[in-house]
Amino acid sequence: MKQSLENVRKTCPLIHCITNYVTVNDVANALLAIGGSPIMADDIRETSDITSICSALVINIGTLNERTIPAMFNAGQTAKKLGHTVVLDPVGAGASPLRTETALELLEKIRPDVIRGNISEIKTLAHGSGFTSGVDAAEGDTVTEQNLDASVRFVKDFAKSCGAVVAVTGKIDLVSDGGKCYVITNGAAQMSRITGTGCQLSALTAAFAAANSQDKCTAVAAAVCSMGYAGELGVLRMSENDGNCALRGYIIDGLYNMTGDKLQRGAKYEIR
Amino acid sequence: MKQSLENVRKTCPLIHCITNYVTVNDVANALLAIGGSPIMADDIRETSDITSICSALVINIGTLNERTIPAMFNAGQTAKKLGHTVVLDPVGAGASPLRTETALELLEKIRPDVIRGNISEIKTLAHGSGFTSGVDAAEGDTVTEQNLDASVRFVKDFAKSCGAVVAVTGKIDLVSDGGKCYVITNGAAQMSRITGTGCQLSALTAAFAAANSQDKCTAVAAAVCSMGYAGELGVLRMSENDGNCALRGYIIDGLYNMTGDKLQRGAKYEIR
Amino acid sequence: MKQSLENVRKTCPLIHCITNYVTVNDVANALLAIGGSPIMADDIRETSDITSICSALVINIGTLNERTIPAMFNAGQTAKKLGHTVVLDPVGAGASPLRTETALELLEKIRPDVIRGNISEIKTLAHGSGFTSGVDAAEGDTVTEQNLDASVRFVKDFAKSCGAVVAVTGKIDLVSDGGKCYVITNGAAQMSRITGTGCQLSALTAAFAAANSQDKCTAVAAAVCSMGYAGELGVLRMSENDGNCALRGYIIDGLYNMTGDKLQRGAKYEIR
Repeated sequence: MKQSLENVRKTCPLIHCITNYVTVNDVANALLAIGGSPIMADDIRETSDITSICSALVINIGTLNERTIPAMFNAGQTAKKLGHTVVLDPVGAGASPLRTETALELLEKIRPDVIRGNISEIKTLAHGSGFTSGVDAAEGDTVTEQNLDASVRFVKDFAKSCGAVVAVTGKIDLVSDGGKCYVITNGAAQMSRITGTGCQLSALTAAFAAANSQDKCTAVAAAVCSMGYAGELGVLRMSENDGNCALRGYIIDGLYNMTGDKLQRGAKYEIR
Repeated sequence: MKQSLENVRKTCPLIHCITNYVTVNDVANALLAIGGSPIMADDIRETSDITSICSALVINIGTLNERTIPAMFNAGQTAKKLGHTVVLDPVGAGASPLRTETALELLEKIRPDVIRGNISEIKTLAHGSGFTSGVDAAEGDTVTEQNLDASVRFVKDFAKSCGAVVAVTGKIDLVSDGGKCYVITNGAAQMSRITGTGCQLSALTAAFAAANSQDKCTAVAAAVCSMGYAGELGVLRMSENDGNCALRGYIIDGLYNMTGDKLQRGAKYEIR
Repeated sequence: MKQSLENVRKTCPLIHCITNYVTVNDVANALLAIGGSPIMADDIRETSDITSICSALVINIGTLNERTIPAMFNAGQTAKKLGHTVVLDPVGAGASPLRTETALELLEKIRPDVIRGNISEIKTLAHGSGFTSGVDAAEGDTVTEQNLDASVRFVKDFAKSCGAVVAVTGKIDLVSDGGKCYVITNGAAQMSRITGTGCQLSALTAAFAAANSQDKCTAVAAAVCSMGYAGELGVLRMSENDGNCALRGYIIDGLYNMTGDKLQRGAKYEIR
């Protein structure tokens, strides 16, 4: 974990983001906070050029549209050809056929190296269809202590079948490459009251995986722990009048001040 | 008022937002702060699907374009067919023919349940044309103690004629369903130095109206009071070096920490 | 400098921004903080109308696309015809042919009054081609004490050749109209870890130049000093747990609280 973060800070990877306009500013600042560098570009006439000068690409379908979907495929194909890390965040897969089908097609044609989503989105990808209530996980899907064994098996199987590191985030986070599975309990309930912590995390996984190509699974787990631990530290900073907007800032600032040693001490996980 | 807010927290309504990219992040966080849940989607191939799983729809024309305008109509038609609350925020109506005509056409074809704007925007809708200096109200239009009777009459008449709850916000806010009219004096002058408090409020009215379908007028008034009172509390928190960016965060945090009791004590209104 | 800022506060110029969706919210709040007023509009059916009611136009190509590029030209032509100040921020020129070519074409056809970029972007414009690593300046290009004479000459020559006030920002900032050149040393290293300080500054130069048409070069220099000094004050406010997100807010708040006298005392520059 410690080394994974330090490699991000050392290499300052440039990350091409095709991401939704809701949380894009926080995504950029979170990448800068952790030591990476963001560039946003979604016109198909430049997505291939831009991704070529980057180390990794994040495709986040949060506000996908007819103009940006072809740009996602274009950037994805170039990035894969060049051996760059490609991350898919299937925001809202299951909430509309357009999202489900686009995410499935990206999965099949781009074969991303990392997939980061909530459990409902990942189940939608795994089963080829699904239903989610908006952009949050459906309650019946939640990973709990009770269904942990089955959930770990599900994530391992899905990771194996799609040849990617899969990160399912929620109260308990699972990160697997098909072999081992990190079970991570960092994080805080209040984070679900902030828009964009998932989007930020997806971008972070790109920076971590790009800077640690020798072990992307551990790198992605380190990104998940960083975000979750920053959330815990942020909640500790909250005073009486603070709310979700203050917490959002504290988390990004927590990433900014995260060190390898801090992360090592704060990361809460076991490997199954 | 108290009950209106508590119903939002209890039901956590999912709100479909087709809204401008300037203030979209604050809109999402404001909805989460008050206890709702946002989903942004503006591609016409999914707007109907997305709005179907929501309780309400906000159409905000702040950065309308040729791609999103048809999506607004599409989402609006589906939402109305399903009996969902539809809110129109005619940002900048009067500032360009495109905005004026789009707002008028949405008014006529979608028949929104709630319309929230500044006085110049609402006058533009009421008179079928207008002129505003940008996205702020023209000075000559301002609702004041002096023209209050006429302003109340105007808002009541317009609300009656379009069958909607109309919320005109400014120094004095007016909320009417054509029958009664709430005259609200919550708020703080400094709020006009922050981008997006109006957009946030429009989204809040959607959450309040969706959670209180039995009395949408009171619900919208409660949303207006919540935003204004959060603004007052925010100004009280400002220290010497704070400015509009700090205040913007304090307001969202004020919504996060708002309770029915607080709102009941802080709301400043009379009914005419 | 003092007078330049006071003229912004006095005239509250309305600024039409066609700007990227990454930093647009901060751009709007920075303009409001300094005493201007923002309006964002990028659909070609209204860009001419909107720019007509404004004092200045900012064209920022940070997330340019096939829909917004023609709108940039359309707004630019109208603004120039009306004698409004036009600012070009060639974000990422050199990073892709699309950006380089669009920026060059805007330069040639619109003839902006102010051009604000990092040294790599400006060199790309001056030489008609270039290479930048993303949206940050290439290291070899940096303006330093060592190459200051040559850098000043370069900026003066480029300003003269394109008939604009050129602002090159970085560790050392240079602002020239072809005659004199302001060499500005305000600012703080931490500002490069925040997304959008450059975009905000470009919008500020539009407000300053519009409010000070009799001496746009000094006005742009005053905008650069304001942003840099707000950055220094922001860094001084940072406490142990603060990071780039807190600093981002402190800077905008610093602009909000900037006065002519403060700026006069804090501005660090010499004229060559």
